[in-house]
Amino acid sequence: MEIKLTRIGKIAILAALSDESEEETIKADVLAGNNNIRLAVTFISGTRGKINETFTRNILNAAIQNNVIRKTPGQMHAVLHAALEALQGVTPQTTSVSSSVKVKVAICTDGVWLAVAAYGDSAVSPFTNHERCGFGIMHL
Amino acid sequence: MEIKLTRIGKIAILAALSDESEEETIKADVLAGNNNIRLAVTFISGTRGKINETFTRNILNAAIQNNVIRKTPGQMHAVLHAALEALQGVTPQTTSVSSSVKVKVAICTDGVWLAVAAYGDSAVSPFTNHERCGFGIMHL
Amino acid sequence: MEIKLTRIGKIAILAALSDESEEETIKADVLAGNNNIRLAVTFISGTRGKINETFTRNILNAAIQNNVIRKTPGQMHAVLHAALEALQGVTPQTTSVSSSVKVKVAICTDGVWLAVAAYGDSAVSPFTNHERCGFGIMHL
Amino acid sequence: MEIKLTRIGKIAILAALSDESEEETIKADVLAGNNNIRLAVTFISGTRGKINETFTRNILNAAIQNNVIRKTPGQMHAVLHAALEALQGVTPQTTSVSSSVKVKVAICTDGVWLAVAAYGDSAVSPFTNHERCGFGIMHL
Amino acid sequence: MEIKLTRIGKIAILAALSDESEEETIKADVLAGNNNIRLAVTFISGTRGKINETFTRNILNAAIQNNVIRKTPGQMHAVLHAALEALQGVTPQTTSVSSSVKVKVAICTDGVWLAVAAYGDSAVSPFTNHERCGFGIMHL
Amino acid sequence: MEIKLTRIGKIAILAALSDESEEETIKADVLAGNNNIRLAVTFISGTRGKINETFTRNILNAAIQNNVIRKTPGQMHAVLHAALEALQGVTPQTTSVSSSVKVKVAICTDGVWLAVAAYGDSAVSPFTNHERCGFGIMHL
Repeated sequence: MEIKLTRIGKIAILAALSDESEEETIKADVLAGNNNIRLAVTFISGTRGKINETFTRNILNAAIQNNVIRKTPGQMHAVLHAALEALQGVTPQTTSVSSSVKVKVAICTDGVWLAVAAYGDSAVSPFTNHERCGFGIMHL
Repeated sequence: MEIKLTRIGKIAILAALSDESEEETIKADVLAGNNNIRLAVTFISGTRGKINETFTRNILNAAIQNNVIRKTPGQMHAVLHAALEALQGVTPQTTSVSSSVKVKVAICTDGVWLAVAAYGDSAVSPFTNHERCGFGIMHL
Repeated sequence: MEIKLTRIGKIAILAALSDESEEETIKADVLAGNNNIRLAVTFISGTRGKINETFTRNILNAAIQNNVIRKTPGQMHAVLHAALEALQGVTPQTTSVSSSVKVKVAICTDGVWLAVAAYGDSAVSPFTNHERCGFGIMHL
Repeated sequence: MEIKLTRIGKIAILAALSDESEEETIKADVLAGNNNIRLAVTFISGTRGKINETFTRNILNAAIQNNVIRKTPGQMHAVLHAALEALQGVTPQTTSVSSSVKVKVAICTDGVWLAVAAYGDSAVSPFTNHERCGFGIMHL
Repeated sequence: MEIKLTRIGKIAILAALSDESEEETIKADVLAGNNNIRLAVTFISGTRGKINETFTRNILNAAIQNNVIRKTPGQMHAVLHAALEALQGVTPQTTSVSSSVKVKVAICTDGVWLAVAAYGDSAVSPFTNHERCGFGIMHL
Repeated sequence: MEIKLTRIGKIAILAALSDESEEETIKADVLAGNNNIRLAVTFISGTRGKINETFTRNILNAAIQNNVIRKTPGQMHAVLHAALEALQGVTPQTTSVSSSVKVKVAICTDGVWLAVAAYGDSAVSPFTNHERCGFGIMHL
């Protein structure tokens, strides 16, 4: 099915949901839009305990390296807060630190707001593995 | 851009993101899939304080009326828990009860797991309105 | 089955679990123990939204009227904190304010620590009604 | 004092509160009831940080090994969620990872709902050791 | 005792702690600093349930009317987030909606970061009234 | 600017905000007050993950070694609870365990209530470092 790319949150969620070829199409569509929207995509996986240490830093690095943000305190702080909000959606139970998490994360901004979306799988046991989705947004 | 409909969480999120015509396409695709997947869509809006009273009931009603679940305690309980998880994503700050919320909600099941996705807008002030997304999943 | 009355938390939980005649036996056993343990029992019911307003006050009143505590700021504060901890167990989801709650609450102290236990039922829908139990403890 | 064994949550709480000989009586009573109720009991102890890693897995193992549940994704997921809810009651403060926890845990089901109850002690310092109780319930 | 005014968070906390004449001195000191720091002070009181509705709006209004921020979505959003963080410190127990709250709130910015500090009293019962302090910070 | 030392919470916050010479003045003023108020100050720093292990113990030790409390279960428990409340203000996001925290902590009591205040800095990245403040209070 086809979905229109209209707002940064929607774009970030679609990019997080996308497989490899779908991601290329989204990136091309965003570039063709000529509207100052910037998008980066990264993968994060590990145990919940490990993810607590790496999630925000990985997303911050992806945002900087892909020129989604400039390296100012305010813009970096916006990424960290949106990432933490997204992490709460991915792993709402803060207590099961040994569960495994594997998500695709997209960061998208229009220069005013910045959205972080994460989609993937998480499980305490492989038998109970199921989808997860987290989303956060912050002003730049 | 086009995204493949492969798993119930992904389908629920795409349906929540969709506009009216996109929603029709998703529903047709799900039906054509012939794979026992059921999908319902509903709208919920109001102040955060009001949403706290109505969110889970509205989603439960939509799930029952659209035959997404049968009216058994277990299946109804699954919808309520997935809905509460989705609500936490939509309104992570439990304290601002006067903020306004307006979301499209999709409920999707394959008979084993059930997903609830919500996407829309929320704001304390119209000036600070931004996108929100919540997601929950539970075994049937 | 029979359970020994040994510690204030255990006594409070058993009193919260008890039916009317079991409650009388527990109270008689506690009195016969001659060990400075005091116990009060009360019922609390209503919607979750209403319970948020009344739960701590009702338990505080029951503790004072039954001489479980003296009316000092410290002892009253201990009851309030133990009651709030118990409430979180009874209704862990803070968002479903329209769910109905009906619990039996016991307050028990040995003069050093104070325990509050609550046991009963809670449901968003009568079809999904299930047991709930909450427990809190605080120094006097 | 004596308490009647009537519902799975009550049975799980009483089993978690029981000492060794009381536990045998409860198990015999449950078996004699001939009503499809299954019950397992296990012990869990360690620092809070360690418990975060082991609590849900230990309870899942106890439930499977004692035939309280079948090894299906849905039934395993139900145990994990009820266990996480019980853990929140046992250790409501997520931040004190070095506190020690020692609890007896009971898992009980009637084939429709499943309850997990935990009772024991927890302390940051041995001087401040006090009772703890946690309880969770989920549809199977 | 005397404390130096060096950073916006410290200034906001001191202003929230101040009585009327101390507040005048702080405001004069901030103005004399000639360093682009802006400060506003307001009072908020009511039941916890009412505060949940009014806290963020009152602080947003005070920030705008006193020219602490400009009326842009980003700057308004920064105030709302810092205010919500401060509110969590003032009333950490989300469940006791009938407790009364009375706080002095200060909002302070240097044009890069914005701090909100709240100090005052809160009580379920007048007998257990005690001090409260909340603090939040956000990039502008 | 000058602020009057009137209540234990206010004294604790001012001591946490103070630099070395200001701290000496506060301590002298408290002693001169001849009113049974006791005050201790300590520093705590480390990663958030490490702080979760050490925060409450460090504050408990400082309170005992400086005779702010006696070594009874109730008084020690009061310090632990006030410290945990203060920690939540210092690090509201429980998930970013790798962020660094550096705070000055003050513990103050009048023999009836005990307050813990913490003020300092916290950052996931040095670029986004900003002030933090936490506060907790408990009956002795």
